[in-house]
Amino acid sequence: MTDTPSALDVLLALLRCRSVTPAEGGALAVLQGLLEPAGFAVHRPTFSEPGTPDVENFYARIGTGAPHIVFAGHTDVVPPGDEAAWRFPPFSGAVADGMVWGRGACDMKGGIAAAVAAALAHVARHGIQRGSISFLVTGDEEGPAVNGTAKLLDWARARGERFDGCILGEPTNPTRMGETIKIGRRGSLTGDLVIEGRQGHVAYPGLADNPIPRMMRALGALAAEPLDAGTAHFDPSNFEVVTVDTGNPSANVIPAACRARFNVRFNDTWRPDTLSAEIRRRLAAAGIGAHRLTFAPCNALAFVTAPGPFTRIVAEAVEAETGVVPALSTTGGTSDARFITRDCPVVEFGLVGRTMHAVDESVDLADLETLQRIYAGVLAAAMGPGASGGLPTAAA
Amino acid sequence: MTDTPSALDVLLALLRCRSVTPAEGGALAVLQGLLEPAGFAVHRPTFSEPGTPDVENFYARIGTGAPHIVFAGHTDVVPPGDEAAWRFPPFSGAVADGMVWGRGACDMKGGIAAAVAAALAHVARHGIQRGSISFLVTGDEEGPAVNGTAKLLDWARARGERFDGCILGEPTNPTRMGETIKIGRRGSLTGDLVIEGRQGHVAYPGLADNPIPRMMRALGALAAEPLDAGTAHFDPSNFEVVTVDTGNPSANVIPAACRARFNVRFNDTWRPDTLSAEIRRRLAAAGIGAHRLTFAPCNALAFVTAPGPFTRIVAEAVEAETGVVPALSTTGGTSDARFITRDCPVVEFGLVGRTMHAVDESVDLADLETLQRIYAGVLAAAMGPGASGGLPTAAA
Ligand SMILES: [Zn+2]
Ligand SMILES: [Zn+2]
Repeated sequence: MTDTPSALDVLLALLRCRSVTPAEGGALAVLQGLLEPAGFAVHRPTFSEPGTPDVENFYARIGTGAPHIVFAGHTDVVPPGDEAAWRFPPFSGAVADGMVWGRGACDMKGGIAAAVAAALAHVARHGIQRGSISFLVTGDEEGPAVNGTAKLLDWARARGERFDGCILGEPTNPTRMGETIKIGRRGSLTGDLVIEGRQGHVAYPGLADNPIPRMMRALGALAAEPLDAGTAHFDPSNFEVVTVDTGNPSANVIPAACRARFNVRFNDTWRPDTLSAEIRRRLAAAGIGAHRLTFAPCNALAFVTAPGPFTRIVAEAVEAETGVVPALSTTGGTSDARFITRDCPVVEFGLVGRTMHAVDESVDLADLETLQRIYAGVLAAAMGPGASGGLPTAAA
Repeated sequence: MTDTPSALDVLLALLRCRSVTPAEGGALAVLQGLLEPAGFAVHRPTFSEPGTPDVENFYARIGTGAPHIVFAGHTDVVPPGDEAAWRFPPFSGAVADGMVWGRGACDMKGGIAAAVAAALAHVARHGIQRGSISFLVTGDEEGPAVNGTAKLLDWARARGERFDGCILGEPTNPTRMGETIKIGRRGSLTGDLVIEGRQGHVAYPGLADNPIPRMMRALGALAAEPLDAGTAHFDPSNFEVVTVDTGNPSANVIPAACRARFNVRFNDTWRPDTLSAEIRRRLAAAGIGAHRLTFAPCNALAFVTAPGPFTRIVAEAVEAETGVVPALSTTGGTSDARFITRDCPVVEFGLVGRTMHAVDESVDLADLETLQRIYAGVLAAAMGPGASGGLPTAAA
C-alpha cells in the first residue's frame, strides 16, 4: 500500500528527462513505466501536421465507469537558457533547501508528478470500485500547440472517451498554495493592420501620402474606448499593440507602408467573429483610408467553467489541505484548458508559478506534497469509498 | 568663333561617362579636356574622410578680375536601376524624338553642359576683358555630400577665391523652362526618438509598460501644431515622421522599446538649435515619460538669397529666352546651394526635372539650347562688352 512512489520520486524522474518542446525526452516513457504496471491502459499516439514538428502524446486510463476524472498536462518544457546560470544543472533534478530544482519543476512536471502519485496511491488503496481515472498528457503545450491536447482530445473522443471533470495541473498560484483556481481563461485574438500610402521625397509631402499619421489615427481609434467593462467571471478585455514597423532606412523618404500587430485578450463578451467585427467597425469609423486588416486564426476562445459541483469538489479539497479559500480566477495567459472545456468541466490548479520559465525554476517540496494531497482529496470526493457523488456524469 | 562645342556635344560626352556616385567615371576629365585648352586653369582636388569614399572634385577658372561668376554642379548621378528597363542604355547618350536620353540628362549633366558651352562661346567671342568665370563641380552630391562642394569651397576659400554670384544648374523647372528659379532652400533636421518601456507578457499588461501608446502620444504632440506659418520667401516648415519601428516578433509579448525617426524641412524661422529646442519642449509638455531624443548633425540650414542684383540678372536672362517670368522659389529638397550661400549670392536654375532619378531620364534638346542661351545671357549681363555692371563685387 505504501510502496507507491511519492510525488518527489516521480518529479525527479521527470526532471531528468530533457523534454524541451517538442522533444519527448523520455518523460512519457517515465509515465508509462509508472502507470502501466498499476493497471492503466496506456496509448502514445503521435500527431503530425505539415509545417510543425511531430509530437508524441500520452493517454492512460484505469476503470470503465463514471465519474471519469482526467488529469491533463504537458511534460514539455521551455528551453533552459544559459545552463551555466542555473544553481543546479536544469535537467539534474536536485533537492536542496527544501526545494526541488529543475526546468519544469512548477510548469508543470510537478503538477503531473503530484497527480500520478495521488492516482497510484488511490488505486493501490481503493482499487477502482467506481469511476475512472485518466491522464491526458501532451508534449506540445510550450510549442505551437497544434499536435498536442487539441488532437489528443479528438483522438480520445473518437475512441468514445467521455470525461466528467478535468484538472489541469498548471501552476496557478502566484505566491502560495491555495490562492487561485482557474475556472476559465480569456481568449486571444491577433490582428495585423497594414496601411499603405504613397512613397515620396520628404521635401515634397504633398506628392506623397505618409501612412504613419494614418496608422497613429487607426491605433488611437482602436484603443480609444474600452472593449467592455468585464463580466461576472472576467476582467475587461484588453487591447494591446505589440509592434509597429515601417522599416524605412532613409530620413529623406516618406515610406510607402506601415504595419502594426495587436493582440486582444478578450472575455466572454466576445467571440472571435464579433470581436473582429467590432475592430473593423472602429477602423471604418476612424476614416483612415485604404488599409488591410487580417486576423490570425483564433484557437483561443474565451471560456469559463461555471462554478458547480466539480469546481466545488476541487475548491473544497484545496481549502481542506491549505486552509485557504481559493479565488476562482480567469486571469493570465491561455492554456490547454481552452481545448478541454469543450469536453467537460475543467479547472486548473497546480503549484506556485513564481519561477516558471525562469532560471532556477523550482518548487517547494512541501507544496508538492500538499498538491498530491489535494488531488487525492478530489479523487476521494469524486469516486472514493463513501463519496457523496453529486458529480453529474456523462462517462461511457 | 563658331567652333566651340554645343551643349549637346558636351552633354553626350558626359552622359557616356558612368559616373555613378561616387565614381568620377571620366566626367571630370571631359570637363578638363574642354576647359583647359580654352584657357581655364584646372584643379582636381580629391577629398577624403574616414567612413566615406574618397571623391574627386573639379575647379576651373578663367580671368582674374571681378565680377567672378561661378557655375556650380555635380557630375555624379544616381544608379540607373534596371538598365534593361531603359529605352536606351542609360550611359549611351542617345538622341531621339528631339530628346537627349541618359542617366544625368537633367540632373545635372545637362546643366553643366549648357554652362560649359555658354562659357566657351563667351570666351571665344569676347575673351575675358573683365570679370572671371569658374566651374565648381563635385562628384559627391548624390552621395553623402561630405567630400564634395563643402570641402571644395573650403579649398577655394583657402586659395583666396572670392565669388560674386553662383548659378547652380540643378533641374529647377517642374514642367517647362522658365517656371522656377530657386533662391533658397529649406533646412533639414532629422531626429531619432526612442521610448523605452518594460517588456512583459501581453496577458499581464499591468506588469509591463508598453512604449507604443507613449510613442503615439509623442508623435501626436510633435505634429499637433504647425511649426510656423511660413515667411516672406518660404512655405511653412514641415514635420514628417519617416519611420516607426518596434521589431517585436511575438504577438504575446509587450515590447521593451519603440523607435521613430522624423525629418523637419524648416524655413528661416528656425536654426537647428532653436528648432531642436522647440521639439524638446513639445515632447516635455506631452508627458510621455522616459525617452531619448537625438538629432543627426545638421548640415542643411535654411537659407535664402534675398532678391537683388544677381537674382535680377538671372531672372531677366530667363525671361528674355523663355518669355516666362520665373517664380523665385524656396521649395523642394536640399542642394549644394546650402554650402555656397556662405560665399556669395547663389541661385539655382536648370532644366526640367520631371525625369530626374527615374528610368528614361531625358531632356528636351530645345530646352538644353535654351539653357545655354540663358547662361550666356547671364555672362553677357555680368561681364560682357557694354555690361551695365550693377553687380556688387568682392572678387580678389
Ligand atoms: Zn505549462
Ligand atoms: Zn542634382
